[in-house]
Amino acid sequence: MSAIEVPDGSPFPLENLPYGVFSPAGRPAGEARVGVAVGDQVLDLAPLLDDDRLASPSLAPLMAQGPAAWREVRSRIRDVLGDRRRRDEVARHLRPQAAVTVHLPVAVGDYVDFYSSRHHAENLGRILRPGTEPLPAAWRHLPIGYHGRAGTVVVSGTPVVRPRGQRRGDDGTPTFGPSARLDIEAEVGFLVGVPSRLGEPVAVEAFDDHVFGVVLVNDWSARDLQAWEYVPLGPFLGKSFATSISAWVLPLEALAPARVPPPPQDPPPLPYLRGGPDAGLDLTLAVELNGEVVSRPPFAGMYWTPAQQLAHLTVNGASVRTGDLFASGTVSGPEPGQRGSFIELTWNGAEPLRLGDGTERGFLADGDAVRLTASAPGEAGATLGLGPVEGTILPARS
Amino acid sequence: MSAIEVPDGSPFPLENLPYGVFSPAGRPAGEARVGVAVGDQVLDLAPLLDDDRLASPSLAPLMAQGPAAWREVRSRIRDVLGDRRRRDEVARHLRPQAAVTVHLPVAVGDYVDFYSSRHHAENLGRILRPGTEPLPAAWRHLPIGYHGRAGTVVVSGTPVVRPRGQRRGDDGTPTFGPSARLDIEAEVGFLVGVPSRLGEPVAVEAFDDHVFGVVLVNDWSARDLQAWEYVPLGPFLGKSFATSISAWVLPLEALAPARVPPPPQDPPPLPYLRGGPDAGLDLTLAVELNGEVVSRPPFAGMYWTPAQQLAHLTVNGASVRTGDLFASGTVSGPEPGQRGSFIELTWNGAEPLRLGDGTERGFLADGDAVRLTASAPGEAGATLGLGPVEGTILPARS
Repeated sequence: MSAIEVPDGSPFPLENLPYGVFSPAGRPAGEARVGVAVGDQVLDLAPLLDDDRLASPSLAPLMAQGPAAWREVRSRIRDVLGDRRRRDEVARHLRPQAAVTVHLPVAVGDYVDFYSSRHHAENLGRILRPGTEPLPAAWRHLPIGYHGRAGTVVVSGTPVVRPRGQRRGDDGTPTFGPSARLDIEAEVGFLVGVPSRLGEPVAVEAFDDHVFGVVLVNDWSARDLQAWEYVPLGPFLGKSFATSISAWVLPLEALAPARVPPPPQDPPPLPYLRGGPDAGLDLTLAVELNGEVVSRPPFAGMYWTPAQQLAHLTVNGASVRTGDLFASGTVSGPEPGQRGSFIELTWNGAEPLRLGDGTERGFLADGDAVRLTASAPGEAGATLGLGPVEGTILPARS
Repeated sequence: MSAIEVPDGSPFPLENLPYGVFSPAGRPAGEARVGVAVGDQVLDLAPLLDDDRLASPSLAPLMAQGPAAWREVRSRIRDVLGDRRRRDEVARHLRPQAAVTVHLPVAVGDYVDFYSSRHHAENLGRILRPGTEPLPAAWRHLPIGYHGRAGTVVVSGTPVVRPRGQRRGDDGTPTFGPSARLDIEAEVGFLVGVPSRLGEPVAVEAFDDHVFGVVLVNDWSARDLQAWEYVPLGPFLGKSFATSISAWVLPLEALAPARVPPPPQDPPPLPYLRGGPDAGLDLTLAVELNGEVVSRPPFAGMYWTPAQQLAHLTVNGASVRTGDLFASGTVSGPEPGQRGSFIELTWNGAEPLRLGDGTERGFLADGDAVRLTASAPGEAGATLGLGPVEGTILPARS
């Protein structure tokens, strides 16, 4: 028996315990502090564990301390929750998730977005550059990525205003207006805890020494803005209006049972991208549009692992900081029902999705609500939930 | 008569007064605080003005307050320095620049780099994509830009370790090693003071309400890494190892006499990029390699102005934060001696520069020291100096 009962089927069983930052509903954001999600509750950690690091409105103090501290804090939480005699004490520090406001778990330093699903990259190549080789020349040699806008990373639940901008007109000159091809990208993100020094690469073996945990990411994308602007410097305004992440950060430690080897890599990567721990993760994502599941992208098939991504992004000597976020890129599997973006699911709008309410979607309509979740195997046969990442589209402002 | 005498020809006359963050040599970085450069001295502002905002190890508290506060603080400094009776008091708060350590003036939020010199964009197009139209299709319709790595923005004087990485080999597969084409990009950067709200664009007219001041920027670039990686998501490791900025931030107010209209724009830009103040700036940069001036790029000829850049980067609703940095892109003029990068100055290494010591350079060698400065017209006929941005190349680590 434990100090708390979690309903069967909850995404947040005792094997999960993701961290987040919350404040009681109706209280000022200045009272925000660290909690863990358990069942449909949030456990207020600082008073329960008498730990000042956790009274912070950010996970950064804990994240910066490294794996030994991460294991120690998680172990203390599990000890308390596993002790039936502490039931009353625990109960005093629980709040219903419905009665708290969640905040961004950490100020994001740099946000890097990769492009590591071969199925996604091939689909996009076929859609956007038909008649040419779908994979860019470097794709199988390095995890292609770019920097996104850290200042517009928002927590799950933040509404997304439809962006306005330039797009190519029929005569090759641009028109201006609300994006007509607003899309999602369902991704898995990794938050750096332990920083590195400028000039010193992080080896592929050091992944677990630096990465604190995992979030789900919705990299909202305005495909029409992106198509007009992206040559030769890459995506910019087509992405920078908002990127949503889950409020709950699953510690890497909890995902030990989900570690899997990545798919074979051919050609073999250069030595700095070889070796290290199995850093593939057996996560299955679910993309919901207005409550209806429209896709189930499998993360285990991603070509490049997060350990390879971190080794690559630092091999030139670039440093990482506590709170840096790097994301996988759109997770898409080989099957049509496993695609992580609408541009793939509807083949650039040519094959609209028919929804249960009888309406069709090429891309997102105003009022649409998108929800990403994921599940993974945890300890003791448990199923761990990640997410949710929720966002509703508001009309463009005039 | 004033409270301090500045030698003739100093880059930092009384009309300049750029802000920076310094600590006395040999003292801990924790003692860092705000100063202004005057002649070859630094004025320790917090005790002189009895102002707590200036006791911070960051310009952020002042920058966030907006133009009225910026004018007020600058006016108080000028009043004190203009009052001969306060000569002894001022002297107590002066330190030789040679006896202080300078720090990054503010933690950089997001770093955006534009591509706004037509001469630079055309040169790069001709060099990298010969036989095709040198300007990308969207170039004359919007200021093309991308996000760089904010966490590796470093202050002038920080050495730069030659980055290692992948580059294209002769057979189309990559090789790995130190960059053989290490370059600079001489740029002008703009630091955001007053933040904006997510979803609310900053109009071109609001430039002076948000931008605090100007720095010089050296956007170090590994051309071989960049050429291999940049399709389709843009520059990444070819840029992210280091970006150097000047320690001294020139307030926009001081540059009022340098405001000039930008060159004519054809075709006329879309309405959101029209109007606003004259935001072109009559700066002349100087690029020195090992003490020898190799180029004098003129900033006044830049096609897109910083006010247009800020309006563009927020038109999709992206917000800006205090400390965000956006840079012009390489400043290159129409003449060969006005090019702001070695890839242009040496036409991708094909026409090496012959230096005064008899050596030649296609790109940077280990031990090379690069120094960027600029000058601009100030009040009362003064010439204002910007910079310096200095950096020396250290050999790649093995």
